[in-house]
Amino acid sequence: MSMVLYELVGRDGLRYSQFSWRSRLALAHKGLDASFCPVAVSDKAALAFSGQDKVPVLVDGARVVPDSWAIATYLEEHYPDRPSLFGDATARALAAFAAQWVDRQVVPVLVPLLAIDVVACLDAADAAHLRGQFERAFGATLEELAADRERRIKSFRRTIAPARAVLRATPFLSGARPAYADYALFSIFQWARLVSPFEPLEDGDPVGVWREAMLDLFDGLARSHPSWRERAEAD
Amino acid sequence: MSMVLYELVGRDGLRYSQFSWRSRLALAHKGLDASFCPVAVSDKAALAFSGQDKVPVLVDGARVVPDSWAIATYLEEHYPDRPSLFGDATARALAAFAAQWVDRQVVPVLVPLLAIDVVACLDAADAAHLRGQFERAFGATLEELAADRERRIKSFRRTIAPARAVLRATPFLSGARPAYADYALFSIFQWARLVSPFEPLEDGDPVGVWREAMLDLFDGLARSHPSWRERAEAD
Repeated sequence: MSMVLYELVGRDGLRYSQFSWRSRLALAHKGLDASFCPVAVSDKAALAFSGQDKVPVLVDGARVVPDSWAIATYLEEHYPDRPSLFGDATARALAAFAAQWVDRQVVPVLVPLLAIDVVACLDAADAAHLRGQFERAFGATLEELAADRERRIKSFRRTIAPARAVLRATPFLSGARPAYADYALFSIFQWARLVSPFEPLEDGDPVGVWREAMLDLFDGLARSHPSWRERAEAD
Repeated sequence: MSMVLYELVGRDGLRYSQFSWRSRLALAHKGLDASFCPVAVSDKAALAFSGQDKVPVLVDGARVVPDSWAIATYLEEHYPDRPSLFGDATARALAAFAAQWVDRQVVPVLVPLLAIDVVACLDAADAAHLRGQFERAFGATLEELAADRERRIKSFRRTIAPARAVLRATPFLSGARPAYADYALFSIFQWARLVSPFEPLEDGDPVGVWREAMLDLFDGLARSHPSWRERAEAD
C-alpha cells in the first residue's frame, strides 16, 4: 500500500506548508513515494483521524504519523535499507538540534514578515482563518507585521549566520551531501519562494548558492513547484 | 613529545578562556594529555610563534595549531584510533554548525553581561587590557553592559531554546554520549561559572541537568576547577 502525505493546500493546488516540505524531501531522500492528500487550513477536522490538527501527517498502511520530525524518524527506522536521512546516532541528535534551531529561531523571525503574502495565496475562507491564527500568534495585524520588512529582514539574515558560516566551507549543512538538517532549513526558503515575491537573502549570500543546490535535488523536486514570481510572470 | 596547550591565565592560575575549555575537553575525550602554557591576555606576543594572537594554540611536536575548531579537527585526524570527537562525516558538519551557533548567537548574548566579572579575575594590567577590548567590541562600558542583567539574561535563556528542546529528549546535544557540540556549548557555561557569581539559568532548566553531567565528565575535569562561588566561600 502506498503512503499518503496530508498537506496544506492553497489556491490552484499550492503546497505551501513548510513542515510538509521537510517530509516531502525526506521521502525523496529515502526514494519513497507518497500520494498527496490536500487539507485546507480552515478544515483541520480533516486531520481528526490523526488525533491532532497539524500537517504534515504521514499514513503508511495502518500507521498514522503526525509531525515532520516524527515522520523523519519513522522513515529512518522503518526503511533502514534506504539512504540514511541522518547519518550516525550523533548526527541524528544534531539534526534534531538543527531542526529545533530552525523552528525556534529562524521561523519566528521570517514568518511574520511574509504572513501577509501567504494569506493572499489562499481562498477567502482559508485566508480569513489563517489571518486570525497569525494575528493571534504574533499579536499584530498582518499589515503591521509586514511593515518595514526591507529593514527588518536584516534580523533574519543575522539569525542564519551560523548556517552561512558552515555553508562557506561545505556545500551542505550536513557536509558533502544533503541530509535532514538541510531539509529543515530549506523548508523555510521553499515556503518563502512559493508564497511571496520578497527575497529574504542579499545578493551574493552563500546561503543562496546552497538554496539553488537544494532546489536542484531529486531531479528538481522543489524547483518543479513554481515560485510566486514565476507564477506572476505566467499570469 | 607531549603536547602543549597555550591558554589564557587569570589571577591565581584561573583558566578562564572558554575556547581553551573546548580544546581541553576535546583532548580529554581523545584520552590525550597536554601540558599547559599560560598566556596573559595583555601579552599576546607570547603567541607570535603561532602567526596569530588568540588562544587556544595547540603545539604537537612540530605542529602548531591555533583555533579551537582547528584543534578539534586536528586531533580527530591525527589520532583516529582514539574515540571520535564528532561521529560520522554528517555529525562532524553538524558539530561545526553547532559551534558556529554558540559563537555567533550564544556567546554574544552572555559575554557582555559577565564581562565585568571577568576583568575582576585578572591582574591589573590584564584587566585594563581586556576591559579595553570588551568596551571597544561592545561599544559600551562594562558597567553599562552589566546593568540590569537580571532582566537581560532572559534573552540568553531564549537563545539557548534549541539546545533546551534537545536536552529534554536526550542526555547530550550529541545524543546518548557527549561529543564536540556539547563541549562547544558547555565552554560558555564553564567560563561563566569560573568568572562570575551570576547564574545564567533558571532553577529547573533542563540545560542545568546537562551542565551537571558535563561537569562530571572525565573524572570531573571541569568541576575540579573551583567556580567563582566556591573560591569566594573558601576565602
